[in-house]
Amino acid sequence: MFALHAGGKLEVVPRSPLRDRRDLSLAYTPGVAEVSRAIAADPALLDRYTGRANTVAVVSDGTAVLGLGDIGPGAAMPVMEGKAMLFKHFAGVDAVPICLDTTDVDELVDTVARLAPTFGGINLEDISAPRCFEVERRLQERLSLPVFHDDQHGTAVVVLAGLRNAMRVLGRDLARQRVAITGAGAAGVAIARILRRAGVVDVVVCDSRGVVHVGRGDLTGHKGMLAATTNPRGVTGGVAQALAGADVYIGVSGGTVPEEVIASMAPDAVVFALANPDPEVHPEVAARHAAIVGTGRSDFPNQINNVLAFPGIFRGALDCGATQITELMKLAAAEAIARVVEHPTSQQVVPSVFDDRVVPAVAAAVMRAAHAEGVTRR
Amino acid sequence: MFALHAGGKLEVVPRSPLRDRRDLSLAYTPGVAEVSRAIAADPALLDRYTGRANTVAVVSDGTAVLGLGDIGPGAAMPVMEGKAMLFKHFAGVDAVPICLDTTDVDELVDTVARLAPTFGGINLEDISAPRCFEVERRLQERLSLPVFHDDQHGTAVVVLAGLRNAMRVLGRDLARQRVAITGAGAAGVAIARILRRAGVVDVVVCDSRGVVHVGRGDLTGHKGMLAATTNPRGVTGGVAQALAGADVYIGVSGGTVPEEVIASMAPDAVVFALANPDPEVHPEVAARHAAIVGTGRSDFPNQINNVLAFPGIFRGALDCGATQITELMKLAAAEAIARVVEHPTSQQVVPSVFDDRVVPAVAAAVMRAAHAEGVTRR
Repeated sequence: MFALHAGGKLEVVPRSPLRDRRDLSLAYTPGVAEVSRAIAADPALLDRYTGRANTVAVVSDGTAVLGLGDIGPGAAMPVMEGKAMLFKHFAGVDAVPICLDTTDVDELVDTVARLAPTFGGINLEDISAPRCFEVERRLQERLSLPVFHDDQHGTAVVVLAGLRNAMRVLGRDLARQRVAITGAGAAGVAIARILRRAGVVDVVVCDSRGVVHVGRGDLTGHKGMLAATTNPRGVTGGVAQALAGADVYIGVSGGTVPEEVIASMAPDAVVFALANPDPEVHPEVAARHAAIVGTGRSDFPNQINNVLAFPGIFRGALDCGATQITELMKLAAAEAIARVVEHPTSQQVVPSVFDDRVVPAVAAAVMRAAHAEGVTRR
Repeated sequence: MFALHAGGKLEVVPRSPLRDRRDLSLAYTPGVAEVSRAIAADPALLDRYTGRANTVAVVSDGTAVLGLGDIGPGAAMPVMEGKAMLFKHFAGVDAVPICLDTTDVDELVDTVARLAPTFGGINLEDISAPRCFEVERRLQERLSLPVFHDDQHGTAVVVLAGLRNAMRVLGRDLARQRVAITGAGAAGVAIARILRRAGVVDVVVCDSRGVVHVGRGDLTGHKGMLAATTNPRGVTGGVAQALAGADVYIGVSGGTVPEEVIASMAPDAVVFALANPDPEVHPEVAARHAAIVGTGRSDFPNQINNVLAFPGIFRGALDCGATQITELMKLAAAEAIARVVEHPTSQQVVPSVFDDRVVPAVAAAVMRAAHAEGVTRR
């Protein structure tokens, strides 16, 4: 286990050899001066004659690392290295872990914004809510680059992909489902948002204090926004009230949901219990009551894994020089992931993470959407 | 020329394969959580289970790029990529270009300091004087990592190495030489300093207004310091006065020095005319009057090239977990470079940049010096 990580999981290697003085004088001084001069004269050449257009910073402050919480930027490094491995392996994107020794929103934004000449995209990772929302929003406002908080949008895109196929299997209309979500952090907020964009009206979200509704006095910021834009039936109470009669349950809370609450859902329900490594409800227990069950784990069917989304999304965004990653691009990515599964079944609503059709399909869909929205530079 | 740079000169690659779900679960979630937990419990494990201890940030703000001046951080990128290639090729160090969109000293220092969880060393590059001195000093004060402004110290170390062997060839004592330097920027200041540490008493430095001396009213900061610590004979005037009777001339100015001024130096002089691509005096012209001539160019003898210094210095500093790069470590590096040339001649006072004995010799010498000074963590 530890041996794989010893010395780190990445290396930075030259793309061409340095055999002799001639190679040296072309790659470095004096030859490189001509390239620098050309970029100084025409900044658009930066993306042609450097690796920037294919390089993404994987940025974390170590405050919400996996299920481990605020373990600091150093302890986040192995995760960011792993993420960078996935970027290269699945999408050919060069990714650099950038773990920052600050948790202050202003400092995070300023620091990452100053890195913009170096990177063609910013993947935010494992930054705790609610700071993650503001960091992402302010960076996207400042930079004409794709800025993507994967804990939010990667999860939301793959959840939507899974739900699209679940609806195909069950012959139901996504927009008419009653959806309950436990967890109002980065993932829960982003899932509620993408479902709304996908036409779902009836979404009820629970945080640790129960159902989010406009009557609660303790909700500000992103939770106030959540209260204002979800829960049209005005449900109050706790997880039991949220799930009673629901068609879809999505767990991104890390808590547990008792079997009788799952049993109280509508017939042929869909349950995505995504807490890792321990799902909110064991998938075998959920399967007694639900028609389709997914988790974040690779040892059960229907693994809802961000790896299905972020490599193709960045591949597409970088390839068309996208200046941002829009909601439409995320919706297109979800649909592309879903469509890779030719014949969805209750045991397969999302593709395997090793299905090599996923990244090209997602990248192509993201590029089409980016062009349609006019947010591309190429 | 441009083809070599198209798409960038680096890639970030996994050090182990991702063949299947098992590889994925070890390199990323859930397996990586155990590694993160271990580092959170014992921060010393960061350098064992991530690539940090072998990774250097090559940081520039693009204000003094090669001889091109302030061309901005984007246009500096090809140079930093080239530098990173050299780090990997010559010393196995993983280096990441970091070009920053600010020229403010406070912002540069804060930004780089916040990157410390990610990098085991900081190579500052092509940052203009006098800001480069303060950026380096303040970063070294804040970070227990090697911080090294290569334009200063890389050049100074290789110049000293060349002078050591020049003295061997000529049978003279370095400490008793009269040395004239043109250029009081990053390189000139660092060369004056390392020569003083090496025992040279009589150093005269010229900036664009002439000889630096305590009588000038326009000198503050690093030039005031230079005036106070050089020029013991109180030379005044210009380049002609500085070089008249000098035993050694070191040009790091980018200007030109007329042949008659070189002719006015002491017999059997040493001339290192290091401006690139056009030396302050053509080496064939200098050779009419001087015993030993060096340049920064690869097409003449005695190429004084930083590549002889920085790879081995960082290799040694990283391998012993040095918390800084001290003056003693730089002196040791210079001596090690010089000693690689077994039989120095007027045509060879420094090794070839492709001599593969250089990096191990420099690294070993740097480590010995670091241990002797007690600035190591390993």
